[in-house]
Amino acid sequence: MAHDVEYAQVPLSWIGPVRISGNVMNDEVKIPLATYETPLWPSCGRGAKVSRMIEGGITCTFVSEKMTRSVIFTLDSAADAVIARDNIIARTDELKKVVESSSRFAKLVDIHFQIASRLLFVRFDFFSGDASGHNMATLASERLMAYLMEQMPELGYGSISGNYCTDKKTSAVNGILGRGKCMIAEAVIPEPVVRERLRTTAKRLAELNERKNLVGSIMAGSLRSGNAHYANMLLGFYLATGQDAANIVEGSQGLTQVEALDDGSVRFTCTLPHLIVGSVGNGKGLDFVEKNLTALGCKEDREPGENARRLAACCAAIVWCGELSLLAAQTNPGELMEAHVAIERASKSE
Amino acid sequence: MAHDVEYAQVPLSWIGPVRISGNVMNDEVKIPLATYETPLWPSCGRGAKVSRMIEGGITCTFVSEKMTRSVIFTLDSAADAVIARDNIIARTDELKKVVESSSRFAKLVDIHFQIASRLLFVRFDFFSGDASGHNMATLASERLMAYLMEQMPELGYGSISGNYCTDKKTSAVNGILGRGKCMIAEAVIPEPVVRERLRTTAKRLAELNERKNLVGSIMAGSLRSGNAHYANMLLGFYLATGQDAANIVEGSQGLTQVEALDDGSVRFTCTLPHLIVGSVGNGKGLDFVEKNLTALGCKEDREPGENARRLAACCAAIVWCGELSLLAAQTNPGELMEAHVAIERASKSE
Amino acid sequence: MAHDVEYAQVPLSWIGPVRISGNVMNDEVKIPLATYETPLWPSCGRGAKVSRMIEGGITCTFVSEKMTRSVIFTLDSAADAVIARDNIIARTDELKKVVESSSRFAKLVDIHFQIASRLLFVRFDFFSGDASGHNMATLASERLMAYLMEQMPELGYGSISGNYCTDKKTSAVNGILGRGKCMIAEAVIPEPVVRERLRTTAKRLAELNERKNLVGSIMAGSLRSGNAHYANMLLGFYLATGQDAANIVEGSQGLTQVEALDDGSVRFTCTLPHLIVGSVGNGKGLDFVEKNLTALGCKEDREPGENARRLAACCAAIVWCGELSLLAAQTNPGELMEAHVAIERASKSE
Amino acid sequence: MAHDVEYAQVPLSWIGPVRISGNVMNDEVKIPLATYETPLWPSCGRGAKVSRMIEGGITCTFVSEKMTRSVIFTLDSAADAVIARDNIIARTDELKKVVESSSRFAKLVDIHFQIASRLLFVRFDFFSGDASGHNMATLASERLMAYLMEQMPELGYGSISGNYCTDKKTSAVNGILGRGKCMIAEAVIPEPVVRERLRTTAKRLAELNERKNLVGSIMAGSLRSGNAHYANMLLGFYLATGQDAANIVEGSQGLTQVEALDDGSVRFTCTLPHLIVGSVGNGKGLDFVEKNLTALGCKEDREPGENARRLAACCAAIVWCGELSLLAAQTNPGELMEAHVAIERASKSE
Repeated sequence: MAHDVEYAQVPLSWIGPVRISGNVMNDEVKIPLATYETPLWPSCGRGAKVSRMIEGGITCTFVSEKMTRSVIFTLDSAADAVIARDNIIARTDELKKVVESSSRFAKLVDIHFQIASRLLFVRFDFFSGDASGHNMATLASERLMAYLMEQMPELGYGSISGNYCTDKKTSAVNGILGRGKCMIAEAVIPEPVVRERLRTTAKRLAELNERKNLVGSIMAGSLRSGNAHYANMLLGFYLATGQDAANIVEGSQGLTQVEALDDGSVRFTCTLPHLIVGSVGNGKGLDFVEKNLTALGCKEDREPGENARRLAACCAAIVWCGELSLLAAQTNPGELMEAHVAIERASKSE
Repeated sequence: MAHDVEYAQVPLSWIGPVRISGNVMNDEVKIPLATYETPLWPSCGRGAKVSRMIEGGITCTFVSEKMTRSVIFTLDSAADAVIARDNIIARTDELKKVVESSSRFAKLVDIHFQIASRLLFVRFDFFSGDASGHNMATLASERLMAYLMEQMPELGYGSISGNYCTDKKTSAVNGILGRGKCMIAEAVIPEPVVRERLRTTAKRLAELNERKNLVGSIMAGSLRSGNAHYANMLLGFYLATGQDAANIVEGSQGLTQVEALDDGSVRFTCTLPHLIVGSVGNGKGLDFVEKNLTALGCKEDREPGENARRLAACCAAIVWCGELSLLAAQTNPGELMEAHVAIERASKSE
Repeated sequence: MAHDVEYAQVPLSWIGPVRISGNVMNDEVKIPLATYETPLWPSCGRGAKVSRMIEGGITCTFVSEKMTRSVIFTLDSAADAVIARDNIIARTDELKKVVESSSRFAKLVDIHFQIASRLLFVRFDFFSGDASGHNMATLASERLMAYLMEQMPELGYGSISGNYCTDKKTSAVNGILGRGKCMIAEAVIPEPVVRERLRTTAKRLAELNERKNLVGSIMAGSLRSGNAHYANMLLGFYLATGQDAANIVEGSQGLTQVEALDDGSVRFTCTLPHLIVGSVGNGKGLDFVEKNLTALGCKEDREPGENARRLAACCAAIVWCGELSLLAAQTNPGELMEAHVAIERASKSE
Repeated sequence: MAHDVEYAQVPLSWIGPVRISGNVMNDEVKIPLATYETPLWPSCGRGAKVSRMIEGGITCTFVSEKMTRSVIFTLDSAADAVIARDNIIARTDELKKVVESSSRFAKLVDIHFQIASRLLFVRFDFFSGDASGHNMATLASERLMAYLMEQMPELGYGSISGNYCTDKKTSAVNGILGRGKCMIAEAVIPEPVVRERLRTTAKRLAELNERKNLVGSIMAGSLRSGNAHYANMLLGFYLATGQDAANIVEGSQGLTQVEALDDGSVRFTCTLPHLIVGSVGNGKGLDFVEKNLTALGCKEDREPGENARRLAACCAAIVWCGELSLLAAQTNPGELMEAHVAIERASKSE
């Protein structure tokens, strides 16, 4: 089945430069966003400008990283599943070797379990170097599953992917046990910048965040999620850098926090537990992707993982820019609306 | 701030034709998917082939549609918020007129409320014709908010968007109160097709679905979600047709159900509560988008909303194709793995 | 099968009096709590004392009420399920009559639907007078289901209870569509009371609430829930007043909000969407329950529903008392801990 | 503040005997349930009778146990929080000693972290012997927090309880990282018992479970929960054995799975991740509690933890009984309803 390949042309623009510091990089970079929703560009541009008015810019802190895959084994009973779990734990060292023999970069770093009746969910955590790691995790999990079924004939095949992984789907497990890179982007924005560039105040921004992103999200029945529109920036960044953009689903589950400080400045933070990005791998061979990754400084000769962490820092920073800008705007009733209200209330009070 | 525009070139291929029937359309169409994960194409292609081996193909049923936006008003107390809610309900007819005067197509069809302390969340439901309706809802909500603040001076401005909407974020509210188009794609796949094309059995497919998509998703702490990879097909379809692809976040929250019937055939169903698609509006002006929408038959002269519903049916159908194909594959241990296990188990039993 | 009945003796004490105002009652009442965790009593007692130091005490606002039950019908396909849904909507008036003929008090007030493949979930909303309404809803739903299956032979029996109700289980649907009585308890606590009685400050209380009840709950993967320990007070109140205490499960899903006001006072609010209480019905015939309900003023001769709403107001008020007291305590590092830290830090700095 | 103590008299009956086997106990015991909803007794009694008709009865498998508490530390920034996390990990051995010095039984077994902006959530996992462990965890956490703040002056006090624990509130974290005792109760029920005692079939039971407990719960926006009414049995058992019954909130989050086997028998399993029970501690000093725990065989001279595990096995078994009985009943349309439908459909077809 040969495929005639055309191309969807998604408009792309470079935002910034954005000033970024932290435990991964210390630099000013322009950041590309590809999207049909082009009003996103000037909005993120305003955030980028703010980043340059802050000493150190946006501090992007790398917290943790892994790629995961859960498989399902079936046993004859829950009682047997508990025994099998213990036997797999006892084989952890063997399993690490199985993974190392399957790949230059993949390492098995942890294993977690869930048992539901006679189903044994085994969630493997991998280090995947500069790749986002989907394929590495698939290959390694196939080998692990085969190895375990060889060694432990009591294990039946349940599924090579058991949704306790979980890829491109809403979950709590990804945030609690980790999946992808967890990054936090933060900065304290000085009062004059809040007032002049963002045309708001620390108090209004903090109140809006609590009402909308925390309380509103809770009311909506959101799950480990409290933000305005992370998904917009993630989509733009993922498309521009050749990522599997369907991973914006879990990427959208992150948290914005705003603190109004006594001097009128604002601590603005985006916690992003699930950035699933790589500087090598699927989608990275396209010319424009190669070019964009290079422009971001993510194709350098570094230790495995460092280019990808830099990419994640850039991603977190642009999310910070877009989130800040939209929230600042929403602290202000729209201008049209303001006019309406002013006129009508005035006319009534006559 | 002018933007130099480049383009992300996302590989696009046409899948099918896919046979589709139901309360929206009755046709065979090729469906475009734009993605960096090109193995998705042959996988969806297998599902498309299955659709053509079924009488009537995939039945796509339109269930409901709306676009929503929630605003936040602040009151002096929860007690006042309850009174304000009742007063807004009493003004429903006025509010409908406000919306109709703001747009040729937008109609206010329902209003829902949540009160959290002295915050009053008001969720407006709109009919938005052939547009996905984001902008229509924004504009109408600004007018509604301004109007209400004029009429009811006790209302303070909370936020023009209160996350009880909710856009591009995980939630339960979107599924329970509705947002976007709810479509269900279903078909009964005859036993020979299950055996020969999908190389599996009804029982294995049903078991896998229960273990992975239902139980596995519950274990993962998913929310109103039980599927393998809806987000992949949604991303590909949204990019190919000029949609705001960040809406795959809520799109990913859907449910696959599999019934093994007595004659060995399989009822395979994808319930998709949140397809946020339009045949007009933002992103639809790009040449290749126009071409693709036309090829899908979604630029015809029809009643408002009908082109968009057809688009949603095509989207639901391609999700069905990709979901079926992957699940069928996962009922089979990988071939490499099968070989491994067989050889090793044989050698042990000697 | 006859049962020898013994009694679990759960220690019960009366807290207060608690001062309560609002759209349901305006009174001072002692409130009974039965629990094995008796430290709850003095803690709630402190909250009660605070209520008496506030003009108007705790304002308890009744927001809405209903009892619900969802049934499942099976159809031949999703396409048929959509048609059946429309036909049931068209019969709403008939269904109201069916309910009215089954009970003196029950009224059908609304119907909601969900379709998942060929399963049609129908959620009936009832007014149930002074009863919590479980049994009324069961009886009415049986009649509604029987009636509909008579009139619409295409409906198959799925389940008399389909978990879209949902009773005694975590959900988002109960909060979004409503179940039980939604009450909000709020008060502004003057600065001197915050300082002297609660030994804290407005700022510390607001910060703790954001960090623990909002952010901490989001991190924990909670669902429509942000509070410290509503379940403790609900259990004590439900046991003391003959309620079905398993309904504390949904009762626990509520939201505490704290606002630090400029003058050092605190707006403290508990939003309780799911109080499932009745002044008549199961469990209310026990002597001590009768006595306790009478002492609360909930056995008076009033319009149907008013006694139960008063009961819900008392319940919301005692939740407010216990929540406030615990949060205030948690703003202060434990005394032992304080001593430890002070001594050790001092000794280090020498 | 002295409290006059009265008693709520909650009706209590003994169900069974229930036959239980597994990795914790092998016995037949009567199990006490205290509840105002006395129809629960005969329903659970039917399940108990079924248990005695199965070889080995209900197999209750102990999976894991821990009691947890999360504290919050504040740092100056997210960057500092990441450093602090690493420093706390490096002190794990010291922290274990701090806990061992605080209690005869408590042991620190694991530590987990979440960072949200500059908040560092530290979740301590304890072994708590035969106690449910609430108080042990509180005391140990106070000491741990004080110790860490002494050693690491950069740590600010956030909260002694940060809701990432989480106690008596809905969450995903408790299931994924563990809290309380995880038990699985399972048995294969022979076909004649299914037919004669439960008056249903394997197929109807499996279908109902999928439709109601899996699909219905997903539709309802439940979280890691798929059962009919675990909370009812948990409440009755907790009250009868002196447990903190507010912990039924997390207890209610469990999963029922039903497999229809080829010979018409049924595998029926209840996975209960969060049984928070103890045979010693708060509430256990009451005379009737002591008597009931003794009757259950949970006051024997055993290794620390064994009495509590036996108690958890009894609890899991009675949940199994009640869940099975209700689901079996719901496979059958109510008799009244059956009659209605039969008569009316007959009269129409004339």
